[in-house]
Order: sequence, then structure tokens, then C-alpha cells
Amino acid sequence: MDITTIAGILLAIASILGGQALEGGHVGSIMQGTAAIIVFGGTIGAVMVAFPLKDFLRGLKLAKAAFSDKKVNLGALAKTIVELAGVAPRDGVLALESRLAGIEDPFLRKALQFIVDGVDAGVARGALQTTIDAEFEEMAVGAKVFESAGGFAPTVGILGAVLGLIHVMENLSDPSKLGGGIATAFVATVYGVGAANLLFLPMANKIKRKLVLERERKTLIAEGVLAIQEGLNPRVLEEKLAAYTGEHGGSEPAAAGKE
Amino acid sequence: MDITTIAGILLAIASILGGQALEGGHVGSIMQGTAAIIVFGGTIGAVMVAFPLKDFLRGLKLAKAAFSDKKVNLGALAKTIVELAGVAPRDGVLALESRLAGIEDPFLRKALQFIVDGVDAGVARGALQTTIDAEFEEMAVGAKVFESAGGFAPTVGILGAVLGLIHVMENLSDPSKLGGGIATAFVATVYGVGAANLLFLPMANKIKRKLVLERERKTLIAEGVLAIQEGLNPRVLEEKLAAYTGEHGGSEPAAAGKE
Amino acid sequence: MDITTIAGILLAIASILGGQALEGGHVGSIMQGTAAIIVFGGTIGAVMVAFPLKDFLRGLKLAKAAFSDKKVNLGALAKTIVELAGVAPRDGVLALESRLAGIEDPFLRKALQFIVDGVDAGVARGALQTTIDAEFEEMAVGAKVFESAGGFAPTVGILGAVLGLIHVMENLSDPSKLGGGIATAFVATVYGVGAANLLFLPMANKIKRKLVLERERKTLIAEGVLAIQEGLNPRVLEEKLAAYTGEHGGSEPAAAGKE
Amino acid sequence: MDITTIAGILLAIASILGGQALEGGHVGSIMQGTAAIIVFGGTIGAVMVAFPLKDFLRGLKLAKAAFSDKKVNLGALAKTIVELAGVAPRDGVLALESRLAGIEDPFLRKALQFIVDGVDAGVARGALQTTIDAEFEEMAVGAKVFESAGGFAPTVGILGAVLGLIHVMENLSDPSKLGGGIATAFVATVYGVGAANLLFLPMANKIKRKLVLERERKTLIAEGVLAIQEGLNPRVLEEKLAAYTGEHGGSEPAAAGKE
Amino acid sequence: MDITTIAGILLAIASILGGQALEGGHVGSIMQGTAAIIVFGGTIGAVMVAFPLKDFLRGLKLAKAAFSDKKVNLGALAKTIVELAGVAPRDGVLALESRLAGIEDPFLRKALQFIVDGVDAGVARGALQTTIDAEFEEMAVGAKVFESAGGFAPTVGILGAVLGLIHVMENLSDPSKLGGGIATAFVATVYGVGAANLLFLPMANKIKRKLVLERERKTLIAEGVLAIQEGLNPRVLEEKLAAYTGEHGGSEPAAAGKE
Repeated sequence: MDITTIAGILLAIASILGGQALEGGHVGSIMQGTAAIIVFGGTIGAVMVAFPLKDFLRGLKLAKAAFSDKKVNLGALAKTIVELAGVAPRDGVLALESRLAGIEDPFLRKALQFIVDGVDAGVARGALQTTIDAEFEEMAVGAKVFESAGGFAPTVGILGAVLGLIHVMENLSDPSKLGGGIATAFVATVYGVGAANLLFLPMANKIKRKLVLERERKTLIAEGVLAIQEGLNPRVLEEKLAAYTGEHGGSEPAAAGKE
Repeated sequence: MDITTIAGILLAIASILGGQALEGGHVGSIMQGTAAIIVFGGTIGAVMVAFPLKDFLRGLKLAKAAFSDKKVNLGALAKTIVELAGVAPRDGVLALESRLAGIEDPFLRKALQFIVDGVDAGVARGALQTTIDAEFEEMAVGAKVFESAGGFAPTVGILGAVLGLIHVMENLSDPSKLGGGIATAFVATVYGVGAANLLFLPMANKIKRKLVLERERKTLIAEGVLAIQEGLNPRVLEEKLAAYTGEHGGSEPAAAGKE
Repeated sequence: MDITTIAGILLAIASILGGQALEGGHVGSIMQGTAAIIVFGGTIGAVMVAFPLKDFLRGLKLAKAAFSDKKVNLGALAKTIVELAGVAPRDGVLALESRLAGIEDPFLRKALQFIVDGVDAGVARGALQTTIDAEFEEMAVGAKVFESAGGFAPTVGILGAVLGLIHVMENLSDPSKLGGGIATAFVATVYGVGAANLLFLPMANKIKRKLVLERERKTLIAEGVLAIQEGLNPRVLEEKLAAYTGEHGGSEPAAAGKE
Repeated sequence: MDITTIAGILLAIASILGGQALEGGHVGSIMQGTAAIIVFGGTIGAVMVAFPLKDFLRGLKLAKAAFSDKKVNLGALAKTIVELAGVAPRDGVLALESRLAGIEDPFLRKALQFIVDGVDAGVARGALQTTIDAEFEEMAVGAKVFESAGGFAPTVGILGAVLGLIHVMENLSDPSKLGGGIATAFVATVYGVGAANLLFLPMANKIKRKLVLERERKTLIAEGVLAIQEGLNPRVLEEKLAAYTGEHGGSEPAAAGKE
Repeated sequence: MDITTIAGILLAIASILGGQALEGGHVGSIMQGTAAIIVFGGTIGAVMVAFPLKDFLRGLKLAKAAFSDKKVNLGALAKTIVELAGVAPRDGVLALESRLAGIEDPFLRKALQFIVDGVDAGVARGALQTTIDAEFEEMAVGAKVFESAGGFAPTVGILGAVLGLIHVMENLSDPSKLGGGIATAFVATVYGVGAANLLFLPMANKIKRKLVLERERKTLIAEGVLAIQEGLNPRVLEEKLAAYTGEHGGSEPAAAGKE
């Protein structure tokens, strides 16, 4: 459960509806089925035109990623890799193979499999890099589905508002309905701007950020395993991986040194 | 038939006109020949100024790409290439040549022809890469025709609205026509904003995405064929291509390993 | 004569003025000297501040490029280069020199001169690449003059409109002049938005596109001539250049092969 | 204390409220709790949805960076490094180690530790570069929290304004409340636009700029220490580092030359 | 004196105020101290928050660069370098040193000093490139101060307008003051939009362009001097530098050839 996503949506909605209520407006006046149909139907339609089916479905699936929270411990991961780096020179590649079954992370297992299979270092580096990039690009398209929805929603909202105003203009002869008609027209703007800025765009941002963090995690794995293959000293590998785990700058390198 | 393009357009139009009807507006009031002439004539004119004839026509042709759906099976393609990789070392380049006729994909055939002709690996890589990039750039200009239309349409719509308002302002003396005149003016905004956000921009996005997918497919072919030329082991090639076919991360590399 | 530029401008203006006329407005009401002075004077002034004199003049000269149409036959150019590639190994560099006079294209002649002069391949590549890039960058600044005008015109138009509205507001006491005053104010918006979206921005786009095509043509020349210098086989060179001439993908490479 | 941040905020607020007061408006009319709740609650909510908790908290911490002023003396830093470069060849690596304790800057100490530990130059360069890049990327996400707030605040402000206008429109029957209602609605716009343009966006810019300066400082350290490891002559190193310390172009290189 | 900057500002202001006067408005109605305080105070405040003091001051100093005109003769500079290239092989490095005093350009002198000092070619290239890049980046931040002012001014102007409108709305009961009040409110928009589009943004563009030209000039110097160090033939160097001096494409290379 990603607490900031849930709390953020609740806080935003509570602030806006609460503020609205405090000013004397009642929430009912911004609950309008037709405005919702125009804005959400139009936005979903535009997004469907904008993406192939596969990307559209991937986007829907990624929505979950904005709400779920996968704890990632880069420090522990680096420690596992450093520990594996000690296995290879001591006990040979076969010992590494026996460890494979106990590794949960599929990408780490896949990378280690390259060593066990004796795949050429250049080919392994290329394949791991391509896998990381291709997966990121692919997933990022899913995040773009939300970004795209955040781009279309306000303009569809304005479309709804203008259509409402046209309707109002045609009935200017009855001034008593004027205000209510304009109010109705404005609700479409509220829906479009609100959905884009409180939901679609922030969600797109959070999904993209999580994809970047996942790519960093995989890059740490790839660099670590390729260093094992090169036979890098575990202590030096530890230094190398520290750069990826966020223990930057302020860390006390003295603890690692003193050999 | 690209189902999301068709369904998306239908959904967007149905939602907006349906919502409009539910609010009591009749569709007739947003059907206006003159607004259509201003918005679409102005937009097409601006796009014609913006692009050379060749690009403009390519853009029109690419519109079809947004509606058609070419099934691409990267897995099967990778399998074909891996299978061809087994032919070369076993039966020699001549055997590869005899296979050429049976290959439907023109780019795969072209790439294999380089091996059969014994073209230098560096030259072949350069030529394939340049072909992929040049074709992508060229096609992407076609997609930009729609992006450009999506940029001009709303401003031309606003131009139409302002012109309409000027006309209204000059006839302020007859207030009974006021509302109707403003309504007419707003229709140009609806056409401009609507055409851009429900048609032009989403179509540009879908076309661009399809071009990216096609470039990925060709890159897979180029990398695969160049690896055949280098004499890469088919099993390692399979690993290498798996990175391009989207069978990332979660795949069980164990099945491919165990040597 | 670039037919799309001429036809596009005519179509856009005819559509907008025609639509305006069909709605009952008369063209005279949007013909206003003062609005034109504000918008075009202000825009030209802003563009002059934004660019050094040399760039500003280059931009004015480049305007012609948007209207003229230089036919470029990349296929014929590639053929000429391939034919020249056959001259060098057969008849020596002197034979190539005797051909120089007959070559019209100054860039091709310049590139060949490097071979004739026996300039080092690395230096020649560097000089040709720098020439192509520097010329493109320099010309692109000229295109940016129009892009910049397209950016300033609408805001200057809005400035004119607000100034007009201020004038109107000060004379609210005479309501009979109200509508006409507002109409006048709006004309500045029409001029600014119209000039930007029907003229400046599309022209900037067309000029930039033509510069890109010219850069591609020069890159083809450079790559071809450098390959001649390297002594690349004319048949392989033909393959290599085909990637630049737009005969991609669907071409039948079988015709070129079969050696 | 970053004086421009404090002075800038004070100047902006004083100018705007002072101008407002001079025009006869009283500050009280733009002090509205409900508008503040809508704008700040909505913005904070949107930002929370947009970022993982860790990034959000890092953003809050970075706010301090916009107000504090860390004096950085690149010249003195370069001098220290040049002086250390003289230690290594003269007294050996052990002498360098004895200096470590006296160095306050943790990044400089970390980099020197690599030399003392005898880490391979390629690995040291890679680790230092990765550390610099990773730290910058990580911190830049914190700056993006403010940039993001600056993007959401005006739209949430407009949302508040539209909601207020809807409320006003529903009460058109009581014209006496009209003006006050609209005024209230506009306050949300003032809060959203003001917070974004006087606080969030400028702060994001200042934080980013400080991160860039910090990255430059660390790059100077990394380049300097790696040059020590390579055994570069201290006098040449001085020249090299001068390029990073901002003593460019106009400096009198004669002083350093004349050997 | 940069004539386009002066002439551009005069033309823009004359066009707008002249047009305004022709429409019957008097300039006095857009002269308002309070609006100026709000817009310029708010903008300067926002820019101060956005930049460290050093960058802010550098921006103020760079303003001068938009108005001054430093004539740069790249052709003469290239000629000087080619002539110096003839000195080195003929008379040795010492002869080059004797020339140093006569060279006015500090960057050229600095680059030549590297040769005279016998600094390693790789180190010299690195130091010159770093100097050019670092100086450009540093100066570009100064240009961004204006770009930033151009971004904040219109929004602060709108802020002033909305504040003015709030004041107007609260005094709706006195309709006679309505128009004048709104007019006053609009003046802030005029100031914000005008200052940004006629001053800040065009000036930022001109400064940036001049920085790019200066970077090109320094790159020509660096490439030329490094080629002297490599011992490149003066005639080939002339060819090489011609690519930087803007004598591209259409130049008659025959004059340089014919060896």
C-alpha cells in the first residue's frame, strides 16, 4: 500500500470539497452525471485513439503500481551480490549454480545464469543492458497512458464547458436559468482539470519514478554480476556498489579501507 | 483494423454528443458549415505551409496506419532468426541463400542478403542501422503532420471564435441575436479543440508508437542477422534476442541454461 | 515555387475570410491599420531585440526558402557518387580531378577536392562533418527568427487587445460605442494569433524541414566521398548509399546481390 | 542564510501587497482561510500522489537548502588538491594516508581513500562518477517536488476559482453578493498563481542550481584526485583544475607558464 | 552598440504606444505606479528567490551584452592561427613564445601558452574544452536570469490584474468606477506581458545567441591551436578552420587545392 498515493488523494479531495463546503457551497452542485460522461468518456476515448491496445492495457495494469508499495532494500541486495562475489573464486562456478535456486529475484537469477552458462562477458553485458532498457521503455509507455489522460482531460473539460455555454447562450431569453446553466457548464472544467491534476498527472509521475527506481535496482544487479564475472575483488565490488545504494558522499570510507 | 482507434473515436464522440443531449442541447446546434470551413480550411492550410508536399502526402497516407493493425509476433521472428543461425555454420552461406526466397519480410531478406553477398560486417551494420534510422525519421515526419494539425486546430478555432465575437460585438444593438451569435462563435472553438484532442493529437501519438514498435522489430532483425554473420552460437543468440522480444525479467532463464 | 506554401496560405485565408463572410461579417471590419501597426511593429521589434542583426537578416532571406522549391534527386546523386567511385581505382586520382570541373554541386566538388588534394581521411571527415553541422546550425538560427516571431505575435496581439479594452473601459459611459470598441480590440488578437499560426510558425517549420533535407543530402555526399577515399567497392557503396536515398525496407536487395 | 531567497520573498510580497494597498485595496480581502485550504491542501495532496514518500520527505528537507548558504571556495579546494598532488610522489601513499584525518570534506576524503587503498584507476573513476551522478539524480528528484508543486498550485487555484464561481452562479438572484462572491473565488487564483510563481518555482530553481554547483565541486574533486592517482604533474594539474574554478578566459596564463 | 536591440525596443514601444494613440487612447492611462511596483517588484523578487546572488549579479551584468556589439572577425582569427601554425615548425616553440605578447585575445594566448609550456596534448584539449564548456554554462545561467524574469513577469502581471479585479468586485455598488477600476487592473497585465515579450525574453535570446557565437569562436581557437600542437600542415589547417568560419558549401575549394 503506497501511503502517499492514498493519503494524497484523500487530502486533495477533502481540502477541495471541505473548502467548498466552508464557503457555503454544497457538494451536490458539483455532482453531475452528464459532465462526468463527457469528460471521462471523451478522455478515455482520446487515450484509446492515442495508444495501441497492448499499451492501453499495460497502462491500466500499471495504475496498481501507483497504489502498491514494494519495499526495496538496495543495501541488502548489494550485500547479497558481494557475498556471491566471494563464492565464485573460492568454490568455482558450480558452487554459484547451486546457489541459484535459493535466489528469489528473477533478474538476479537470470544475470547469474549467464555466468553459470559461461556466456561471453560482452554478450552478457549487452543482453542485460538491452533487457533493462527495453523493459523500462515498455513500462514507461504505460506511464505515458496516464500522462496522456492528464493532457486530454482538461481540454475535454473545456470542450464540455463550451458546449454547455453554447446551450446556455441559446436560452438567454430565460435569465433565471442563466446562472444554473453556466454553473453546470463549469462542472465539466472542474472534472477535467481536477482529474488531470489530482489523479492522472500525479499518478503518471509516481509510476515513472517507481520505474526509474526499478531500473536503478536492475542496473545495480547487472553491474554487480558482471563484476563477479570479471573476477573483481569482493571488497572493491563493495565500494563500487556503494555508489548505487545511495550511501553517497557522507559515508565514512575509512571503515571500508585500512587494508 | 485497429480496434482501439475506432472504439476510441466512437466512445469520445458518443460521450460528448450524448452528454450534450442529456443536458438538453441538440446536436444540430453544433453543426455549422461555416465554423467547419474556418477551422478545417485554416488548419489544413497551415499544415500545408508547414510541410513540403512529400511530407504532407506521407502524413495523409500514414493516417491509415492509425486505423490498421499489423500483428507483429516478435517471438516467432526471433525463433526464425535463431533457426537461420543454425543453418549458416552447418550448411554454409549457400544454404542460407536458398532460404532467402522463402522469407516474406523484406527487411529480414535484405539483411540476410548482406551475409550471402559477403558484405563486410562493419559496412552491413552501418547500412542496416542507417536504413532503420532514416526510415524512422522519414516516417516520423509524417506523424508530425498530425501533431502539427493538432497544434494549429485549437488556435484556428479560437481565431474563428474571435472573428465570430467581433461580428457579434458589431451587432450589440440587437440583443435578441446576442446569445445565438456567441453560440455560433463558440462552435469554432469546439471544432478546433475537439479535432485536435480527439483526433489529430491521439492519432499522431498512435502513429508514432507504431513507428517505434516497427523500429524495435527491425532492430531485432538487424542485431540477429549481424550476430549470425559473427557466427554467434544459436543458443546464445536466443538469449540475446530474448531481451528484445519483451520476455524480460520474470522469464525463467533456467530453461535456456543447464549446459 | 513551393506549391504547398502558396496553396496553404491561400486556402487558410480563403477559408477564414470566406467563413467570416458566410456568417455575415464583412472583411472590412477586420482591416485595421492601428491593430496592424501594434501587432507587426511590436513583433518585429521583439524579434530584432531577440537576434543579432546578422541572424535577423538571414531569417529574412530564408523566408524565400519557404516559397521556393529546389528539386533534389537523391537517387541521381547517389548514382553519380557510385560512378565516381569507379573512376578512382581504375584511372587514379588525376582522372577524378579532371572530373571536378563537370560537377555542379559545390559541396560535392569541395568533398572530392579533399581526395584530389590527398588530405588525410580523418581530417577530411572532420572538416566535412563540421561544415555540415556549422551550416545547419547557422541556417537553423534563421528559421528560429520565424519561430520566435510566431511566439511573440500572439502575446503582442493580446497586448494590443488589452490596451484596446483599457480604452473601452475608460469610455464605458457611452455604451453605444462599447461593442465596436471591443471588436476593434479583438482585431489585434486576430492579427497576432493569425500571423503566428498561419504564417510564422508554419513557415519556420517548412524552412527547418528543408534544412534537415539539405543536411541529409550533404551527409550522403560526405559519406559517399569518404567511402571513395577509403576505396570501398562501388557495389557495396551503392548498398550503403541506398540507406540514405529513402529506398528502404521494401526494396528488393536481390537485384543488387547475386555476385 | 541565503540572502537573495529571503530578500526576494520579502520584496515580492511587499511589492504586491504594497501595490494592492496603494490602489486602495486592503490586505484583509485576500486573506481567506477556505481558499488557502483548497489551494494548499489540493497542491500538497497532488504532490503526495506524484512522489514516493522518500522523495516527498527529501523535497521537504531540501527546502532548507533554498534558504541556507554554504560558502564554496573552489579556488581553495583546487589549491588543497594541487598541494596533495605534491605529497604523493614525494612521500608516498602512506604520507597521503596520514593527511586523510585532517581533511574535512567527506567526498574528498572518500576519493583520496581510493588512492590509499590502491583501488584500480578505472574502478575508482567509475565509482566516483557513479556516486556524483546518483547523488545528483536523487537530490534533483527533491527539487522536482517543488517544481511539481509549482505546476499543480495554479491549476488547483483555478479549480478553486471555478468552484467559487459555480457557487456564485447558483446565487445570481442576489446581485448584492455577486461581487464579493466573485472576489472570494478569485482569491484562490491569487494563492495558486502566487505560491507557484513567488515560492515553489523559484525555490525549485534555486535548489537545482545549488545541486549543479555541488556537482561541479565534486567533479573538480574527482578529476583532481584521479589526476593525482595518474601521477599528473602538480603544475599541469593546477592548469587543469583552473578550468573548473571559474578562472576562465580572461585569466593571465602567463603567471602559470614561463617554465 | 547593438543596433537591433536599441532599434527593436524603440520600434516595439513606438508601434504599441503609437497604435494606442491612433485609436484615441492616451498614453497616460497606461502609466501607473502601483501596477509597476507590483509587476516589477514581484518579478525581481521571484528572480532573486530563483537564483543565487552570484548568478543574479551575473545576469544584471550580462544585460549590457544585449546592448553592446563586439565585432568578431572569424576569418581574420583563422588567418592568424594559420599564420602561427607556420611559425612553430619553422622557428621552433620559442619563436611561438615570442609571439605571445603580441596576441590580444586572452583565450588564444592561454591556448598557445599550453604549447609553449609543452603540456601534453590530451591534457591541453581537456583543459581547453572544460574551460569553454564551463564558461558557457556559467554565462548561460546569467541569460537564464532574463528568461526566468520573462517567465515570471506575465504571471505576476496576471496576479496584479486579479488583485485589481478583486478590488473592483468589492466596489460593484459604484458602477461609475467600474470601468476605470478594470482598466487599472488590466495595466498590470500590460506591464507583465509587455516586459516579458518586448524586453526579458528577447534579451535572454540575444544574450544566449551571443554566448553561442563566443563559444564557437573559442572552439575555433582551441581546434586551431591543438592542430598546431599536432603539427598539422598549415594548408590543411586552413581547410579545417574554414568549416568554422562560415565559409561553407558555396566556397570555391579549388582556390585552396591545386597542390
